[in-house]
Order: sequence, then structure tokens, then C-alpha cells
Amino acid sequence: MSPLLDELVQALRCLPGVGAKTAQRMAFHLLERDRIGARRLAEKLVAAAERIGQCSRCRTFSEEPICSLCRSPGRDDQLLCVVETPADLYAVEQATGYRGRYFVLHGRLSPLDGRGPRELGLDRLADRLAEGQVRELIVATNPTVEGEATAHYLAQIAHAAGITPSRIAHGVPVGGELEYIDRTTLAHAFLSGRRLKVQRVIQLAVTH
Amino acid sequence: MSPLLDELVQALRCLPGVGAKTAQRMAFHLLERDRIGARRLAEKLVAAAERIGQCSRCRTFSEEPICSLCRSPGRDDQLLCVVETPADLYAVEQATGYRGRYFVLHGRLSPLDGRGPRELGLDRLADRLAEGQVRELIVATNPTVEGEATAHYLAQIAHAAGITPSRIAHGVPVGGELEYIDRTTLAHAFLSGRRLKVQRVIQLAVTH
Repeated sequence: MSPLLDELVQALRCLPGVGAKTAQRMAFHLLERDRIGARRLAEKLVAAAERIGQCSRCRTFSEEPICSLCRSPGRDDQLLCVVETPADLYAVEQATGYRGRYFVLHGRLSPLDGRGPRELGLDRLADRLAEGQVRELIVATNPTVEGEATAHYLAQIAHAAGITPSRIAHGVPVGGELEYIDRTTLAHAFLSGRRLKVQRVIQLAVTH
Repeated sequence: MSPLLDELVQALRCLPGVGAKTAQRMAFHLLERDRIGARRLAEKLVAAAERIGQCSRCRTFSEEPICSLCRSPGRDDQLLCVVETPADLYAVEQATGYRGRYFVLHGRLSPLDGRGPRELGLDRLADRLAEGQVRELIVATNPTVEGEATAHYLAQIAHAAGITPSRIAHGVPVGGELEYIDRTTLAHAFLSGRRLKVQRVIQLAVTH
């Protein structure tokens, strides 16, 4: 293989989920069919890597000092949702009707990896809560051991500021089957279950 | 999502097999963890798209006028293997012990798509055969309808130049199971079968 082609194949392997074979297929595809796409991708990669930083308010990815979500006047300042990554923020934004603000940790508490409260910007979060606008802190860290530890720590910060912390629910995913769910999740789903509201259905059955 | 991030996600979709979700995951991964990799990839994409052209002798991808395979003195000039794409050349080179030369068509005969003999460089192939060094033309086009039509056409060119054309074998892939092979391949495997050499085994059985 030509040295340049080989270097391109190696460079493509920085993409997640792309091994040697896929990288090779991508390189051949771009050279054979889409050199314009390859040039545009190169341009966007450079622009993104150089110009996308963190929003100074919520710490999500943004090429401007304050991101569009923080600038938007149409959102509820009383709700603040804490997520681990910008990807999580985006997932919440796409899937839910949540209209509050966000705060991005860029990780989770993991002292062994050198990720303490300072690295997660928790001092900045405390300042934000001290501003007095936020009434509820919605903790949407992942339900892993470290994510739970982070959630616990965040709850303490919220309590200290006199704010209600809440946690997103964990249980059996919608569309999932009990048979294939891991034990911890299933146990959690039993412990955190809620009463079904049947009164209205019964009433309807009676009146009809 | 920030406009630049959105543009990066869109640009990543030029890669084969990368949809909206994967492109998003790639973009977040690069920004969060590997900006150096992103910059290097951009650099290699530009270098490859601008500097990789075709070898003037075999038409494979090369950043030099004549590729390293054509320049190599250690290869047999009497054998010429014709493949559809540089990726096919690379596959043959990696999997087989073939030590002859190559010729890359960059496609197959497909008059409806405007790919005739000229687009496949068949005039240049005829010139190459007229040089007189090649004794055998190994046709390794894909076993598709158009690949077979191309193989037939190549055989005619070889005959015209007084050269033996040969075709790589088609049949049940090694490790494949008859039950799951399509009918055409199985029929082809029966028609193109060869006699098993059992004499030596019998002899061994007798002498031991």
C-alpha cells in the first residue's frame, strides 16, 4: 500500500469502533468515490478541534463563550440537570421534554484517576446554586458505581444550598424483558416502584 | 447542539457505514478524548485526497508516478493480474503468494453507467500486453454479472494479443457450509470441480 494511504488508514483508527479492516474500507471509499467529502471532513475536524471549547456557564461543548442553551430565554432557570457528558446532555435534550438548564461534569468522581470535585467543576456548580435561582437539582449521572457516588456528592452540595436534589429513575428499560435484565436493575426496579393509578380506570368501568 | 459540532457530525457521515448515531458518537469521542487524533486525521485526509493519484502503469492508488509494486524488481513480469479496485489488489496481495504484476480497472464494464473500455483503461492494458512480456493474464474481477462480462471482454483482449487468459476459481468459500451457500455458487462449484488426488493416500495406506 502507498505510504500516504497507509497513514490515512492508521489515522482513521482514532475513530471509536473503527478497526484495521473498517479503516481500510473507509480510506478506499473516500479515495475512490468521495474526495470532496474527505476534504470537507478534514476542514470540519480542524474547525471543531480548534474552536469548540466549553460554555463558561454549563461547561457543554460550545464555540461561543456562553452556549445557546444557556442563552435561551425560553428555559426554566429553576431547574438544573447535571449530566456526565455533552453526549448525555444531547440525549436528554432529544428524548425528553425537559426545559430547564444543564450543567456538564465532563466525567464522574473518580479519585484514583485524578478526577475530584475540582475537575468536575463542582466549585462552579456550587457558585451557580448560590445564585439562588435554582430550586431543583436533577441528577442524571449514569447508574454506575462512580455515577452513584457522584450523585450522592451532588445531593450533598444541593442540600448545603437548601435545594431539592432529585435523581432520574432507574429500572427496566421500556421495551425490555424482565427475563433478560440484570439482577441489580431488577432489584432496583422493585425497590423504586410506584403505585399504579387505577382509580380512574375503575371509575370509568363503573360509569360505562 | 453547537453549529460546528453539528457540521462535524454531518461531515463524518461521508464515511461508509456511518449513520447519524455513529457520527454523533465519533464527534463526541474526538472532542472529549482525542483532539490530537482529530487533527492528525484531518491532515492525512487532505494529504491523501490531494496527493494520491493513479500509478501510470497499473492504475492503482499511488502518490508517485509509478507505484512501488510496478517498480519492484522482484516480481514476475510474465504474470499480470487484473482487478476491479485498488482494494481488491490489496486483498490479493495480503491473502495470496502472488508475485506477478497488477492492472486496476477502477470499476467494471457497465455501459449504462457510462463505464466502457476507455474508462477502465483497457486501451492501456492492450498496450501493456503488446509489450510482449506478459504470458498469462489472470482475471480477478468479481463474480457478478458485470464482473463476468468484464472478464469475458478481457479474455478477448488477451486472445488477440496471443496471451493465455485465466480466471480465479469460484465456488464454496473455505469454511463455508453447503447448506447456506446460494444456488448459483453451488452449481458453479459442481461444474468447476476438480478431481481429488487420492493415489498417494491409497499408496500410503497400503505401504503402512
